[in-house]
Amino acid sequence: MKLLYPTSIKLDTKSLEGYSVSLHAYDAKKPIPEDLIDAEVLVTWANSPDNLKDAAQRLKKVRWIQSLAAGPNDVLGAGFDPSAITITTGSGLHDNTVAEHTLGLLLTAARRFYEMRDYQTQGKWPGHLGGPQPDRPAGAFTTLQDANVLVWGFGNIAKTLTPWLTALGAKVRGVARHAGVRDGIEVYSEDKLSELLPQTDALVMILPGSDSTRHALNADRLKMLPNHAWVVNVGRGTTVDEEALVSALDQGEIGGAALDVFEKEPLPESSPLYKQKNVVLSPHAAGGRPRGAEALIADNLRRFLAEQTLKNVV
Amino acid sequence: MKLLYPTSIKLDTKSLEGYSVSLHAYDAKKPIPEDLIDAEVLVTWANSPDNLKDAAQRLKKVRWIQSLAAGPNDVLGAGFDPSAITITTGSGLHDNTVAEHTLGLLLTAARRFYEMRDYQTQGKWPGHLGGPQPDRPAGAFTTLQDANVLVWGFGNIAKTLTPWLTALGAKVRGVARHAGVRDGIEVYSEDKLSELLPQTDALVMILPGSDSTRHALNADRLKMLPNHAWVVNVGRGTTVDEEALVSALDQGEIGGAALDVFEKEPLPESSPLYKQKNVVLSPHAAGGRPRGAEALIADNLRRFLAEQTLKNVV
Ligand SMILES: NC(=O)c1ccc[n+]([C@@H]2O[C@H](COP(=O)([O-])OP(=O)(O)OC[C@H]3O[C@@H](n4cnc5c(N)ncnc54)[C@H](OP(=O)(O)O)[C@@H]3O)[C@@H](O)[C@H]2O)c1
Ligand SMILES: NC(=O)c1ccc[n+]([C@@H]2O[C@H](COP(=O)([O-])OP(=O)(O)OC[C@H]3O[C@@H](n4cnc5c(N)ncnc54)[C@H](OP(=O)(O)O)[C@@H]3O)[C@@H](O)[C@H]2O)c1
Repeated sequence: MKLLYPTSIKLDTKSLEGYSVSLHAYDAKKPIPEDLIDAEVLVTWANSPDNLKDAAQRLKKVRWIQSLAAGPNDVLGAGFDPSAITITTGSGLHDNTVAEHTLGLLLTAARRFYEMRDYQTQGKWPGHLGGPQPDRPAGAFTTLQDANVLVWGFGNIAKTLTPWLTALGAKVRGVARHAGVRDGIEVYSEDKLSELLPQTDALVMILPGSDSTRHALNADRLKMLPNHAWVVNVGRGTTVDEEALVSALDQGEIGGAALDVFEKEPLPESSPLYKQKNVVLSPHAAGGRPRGAEALIADNLRRFLAEQTLKNVV
Repeated sequence: MKLLYPTSIKLDTKSLEGYSVSLHAYDAKKPIPEDLIDAEVLVTWANSPDNLKDAAQRLKKVRWIQSLAAGPNDVLGAGFDPSAITITTGSGLHDNTVAEHTLGLLLTAARRFYEMRDYQTQGKWPGHLGGPQPDRPAGAFTTLQDANVLVWGFGNIAKTLTPWLTALGAKVRGVARHAGVRDGIEVYSEDKLSELLPQTDALVMILPGSDSTRHALNADRLKMLPNHAWVVNVGRGTTVDEEALVSALDQGEIGGAALDVFEKEPLPESSPLYKQKNVVLSPHAAGGRPRGAEALIADNLRRFLAEQTLKNVV
């Protein structure tokens, strides 16, 4: 049995040895070579759409695809037969790195590093942002201390991020499909949003992309946020109605937005978001560095060979 | 007995009542009014140099000055008689806010938010910073996870910052005058710097300004850092030899610098630091927001009246 792993990520393949499986490297940007098309297991990371489309046609024997991405959208869209193939994701491999980036975006917003940068590039000292300042003034998001942070999409990433926010003094609540206390944080269902949003200083969106999350943050919900509230999105661009967001920013209905994901990526140069005041853009850079991939692949490989249920099945 | 408090900060004076002391507000930017010059206690925050110089001349009865700043430099320089007057600082009131800013600077450096900002203001997508990335590549500071962070000046602020760094996965060591384990962190004396600096991914300077800390980070020590290491300074500008820093940046001897304090503030527009690659400037903005001032003043007031030793005596 052949397992194909991509050269697009440095894997310690030593820790995948010991199973009755032969391991074969492949280039995720080119068609899979003829002598590997009888593979039963395919590990994917940063594959080109052409590579995946071609693999879906030619890898007739594949039974399991382990994606290292948090979301399986690229694999699902390539034309593999979902009834014959188990697809598992890299959920969990991106928790630390996405959470770190999210914390960085929150601090950039609160401490106004983006505004300081604009002064710096003009060779100017942003005196108004330094020296004596009011501490935690009402109606402003200037620090995580005592800030009300609402995390919408309370999965693996949120569970890594939340203890850091709490340590920095934030008051964190969550929103997910199922209500209840998770890791000591009160998580609400979406029907409570109209109560929660008006009490929010920073809204952190970590929702997956799907039909049911499309435009979850729409014009109505943006209006429920206080005028000083920041929106941070590190989940999927489709979960925010970008047109409504631009208009909320224009109207001063929210304080700002720090975005890592967009409805269309790369964000088109025509997007008004580039030039909007109090908008911080990052180029889908929160994740992109699977961490601990070998352990997940090895565990799932063992389960696969033992005909047990795999982890992270889509 | 009169206690004068400045209007430059919003104080909850209710929590200073109940002592045999009358409380009087004063403007920290103007001469103290004639009817208040018999005050025995002076609280200072963001006073103008003229106000302090004038007060040093005219407040003949003052016996205790409570500064809310972390360092007492402005009060010490005004000409008060140190043999007759007890001076106490606001050390501890700035821990959380300086630590938060420092974490923000570290994440700005690691996740390259400053570079993303430059693309954004040009209406461009910084594609090279997003998408698939190598995880924790050797010879680069890209994340706090597994990063070696050396905190030089291991006092109150460091003790607030360090647990956050550790939670994010950093390996933290400290440098101070006295060696030993503090809050679970190994703290070394300065004679170990030549061993520690070469193993450092991010050097965080939180030293006070004094003759003994002047140019603590000099050309020789900058050379000991790996070429990818970042220098973060939130202590005092005088503790870094700025000319040597600029040259180390020019020569690629260090990876970058994130600075909140400078030898001269505001940083002169002629400074090469404004335009240097991989330099992040913030305008002495880490602190500036004393937090919990009332509790410190009240405690020290009680001690003062009971003739006990005050907290934070210079
Ligand atoms: N920016 C980046 O570079 C980057 C990197 C990695 C991942 N991501 C994105 O982050 C997303 C979240 O990752 P994760 O690992 O935290 O996922 P996860 O563990 O699967 O958690 C997803 C969370 O979203 C909630 N949710 C799902 N569908 C929902 C809906 N229709 N309405 C309301 N809540 C819904 C879930 O609620 P329940 O818990 O109640 O089921 C869960 O709390 C990924 O799907 C991916 O799109 C982005
Ligand atoms: N950027 C801002 O807005 C801002 C705001 C507030 C404060 N600050 C600065 O931050 C500094 C530190 O604040 P803190 O509250 O953490 O002070 P702290 O509690 O007094 O700690 C000072 C630390 O520096 C060490 N130290 C002092 N002199 C030294 C020397 N000559 N050589 C080596 N180490 C020395 C001390 O060593 P030992 O522990 O061994 O004595 C101690 O670890 C302040 O003095 C102030 O200048 C900046």
